Amino acid sequence: MKALEKILNNNKSGKFICVGLDSDIKKLPKILQSDKDAVYKFNSEIIEATKDYAAAYKINFAFYEQNGSKGLSELEKTVELIPGKILSIADAKRGDIGNTSEMYARSVYEHFKFDAVTLNPYMGKDSLQPFLNYYDKLNFVLVLTSNPGANDFEKLILNNGRFVYQEILNRINQWNENHNCGIVFGATKIEELKSNIKDFGELTVLLPGVGAQGGSMQDVKNVFNDNKRENYIVNVSRSIIYKSPDSDFAEAARNEIISLHQIKS
Amino acid sequence: MKALEKILNNNKSGKFICVGLDSDIKKLPKILQSDKDAVYKFNSEIIEATKDYAAAYKINFAFYEQNGSKGLSELEKTVELIPGKILSIADAKRGDIGNTSEMYARSVYEHFKFDAVTLNPYMGKDSLQPFLNYYDKLNFVLVLTSNPGANDFEKLILNNGRFVYQEILNRINQWNENHNCGIVFGATKIEELKSNIKDFGELTVLLPGVGAQGGSMQDVKNVFNDNKRENYIVNVSRSIIYKSPDSDFAEAARNEIISLHQIKS
Repeated sequence: MKALEKILNNNKSGKFICVGLDSDIKKLPKILQSDKDAVYKFNSEIIEATKDYAAAYKINFAFYEQNGSKGLSELEKTVELIPGKILSIADAKRGDIGNTSEMYARSVYEHFKFDAVTLNPYMGKDSLQPFLNYYDKLNFVLVLTSNPGANDFEKLILNNGRFVYQEILNRINQWNENHNCGIVFGATKIEELKSNIKDFGELTVLLPGVGAQGGSMQDVKNVFNDNKRENYIVNVSRSIIYKSPDSDFAEAARNEIISLHQIKS
Repeated sequence: MKALEKILNNNKSGKFICVGLDSDIKKLPKILQSDKDAVYKFNSEIIEATKDYAAAYKINFAFYEQNGSKGLSELEKTVELIPGKILSIADAKRGDIGNTSEMYARSVYEHFKFDAVTLNPYMGKDSLQPFLNYYDKLNFVLVLTSNPGANDFEKLILNNGRFVYQEILNRINQWNENHNCGIVFGATKIEELKSNIKDFGELTVLLPGVGAQGGSMQDVKNVFNDNKRENYIVNVSRSIIYKSPDSDFAEAARNEIISLHQIKS
């Protein structure tokens, strides 16, 4: 199934939540920490407990790569656990010169077999082209990020009066001729979301920042509903997966996603 | 030894070349391709053949990650081969929200034990801060890259008349209070190098793009010498490591680095 279809199907079933698997061994429940496959077992239980409500799972490469080859082995096994109807996203913020980006695209889409990736636009279109050449995938390019540093460069004002991030949004719309582009737009930036959503075109939207970073699921849903727009997912990581530090972590994660899922606007 | 000292010491000995280990199994000499440790053996021979002339080795994560956990295992073993006096650079273009960048910094500096990393500035200062907190390391932030796509966003003009990349250069100078920052500036952009070098301050400069991408070692050396400036390294990847496709690949790499090393300005 095409990545875009997975999102649209899940949105139709009322599913808008992406569960972020930022699984840090130091934050896992104590009962798992001494297990040599702790991260994999944690992910396995979290996925099993949340899969009825998740529209997507996002795997943050940093949390795996910090353990080198062992971490990447846990990542490889985790991707295989994600049910086929649910979108799998490699959160890796890629972008490099052409022949290097080709290797990264091969890594994400052919070795790890993800449905989607996050990309950094700084180096320009040719740095993303190897990913855009995969028509059945979804390429989420950073536009306005959820962190305070988004003000440093993303919100610099250009000589045409636009913010840098708005110029990037404009270009991504042009690159979407094969319907395989998306954008990352911080759920912490509600005012900017309201004022820019009319320019999102047909782009799929990934909104990180709900929970630990302070963004609100309710606020995001309101903006999309007010604009009669679907084709989006809201990422929640820490506040789902670390909801309980005890042996009931999976049940607590399930209760948290159910509670977020039930928010109507 | 501090990362910055390694560069300065090597520059004093007339060494300015960084060898890029973009080791793609598909491009290795045929005699190695059937070996199960082909990439590691190739790197081992290349490092042994070039170490008398190299100021640095740059390991491009993409080429290893495309093989998943096995690739990262080869990366782990390759870093250990780099002699202590020669700078080791993780070419990974990192940059993410704070808690994620912390994991990436832990990966690069504590797990893999590199001396330096390449970083992408798009998400702003807080996305790079976890790397800047390592005072003995060198953090090379992208300014103007060597690829054609550098024109797409890096060269957008701001309302203060500067290019985006010049604003970023300005900020990195401000972030360099602990003398652990550097910049990436494409060796293919000689005119921009000439007109901006006066604003490089104390930043160490990594210049990719010589060889396969069309940049010239001679041109780069001329600009730095004309400005009476050291504290830089010029990366060369494919045109050294793939100089010969046959069993004499290591000797050919050695001859190529000697030839580039002898260029005077």
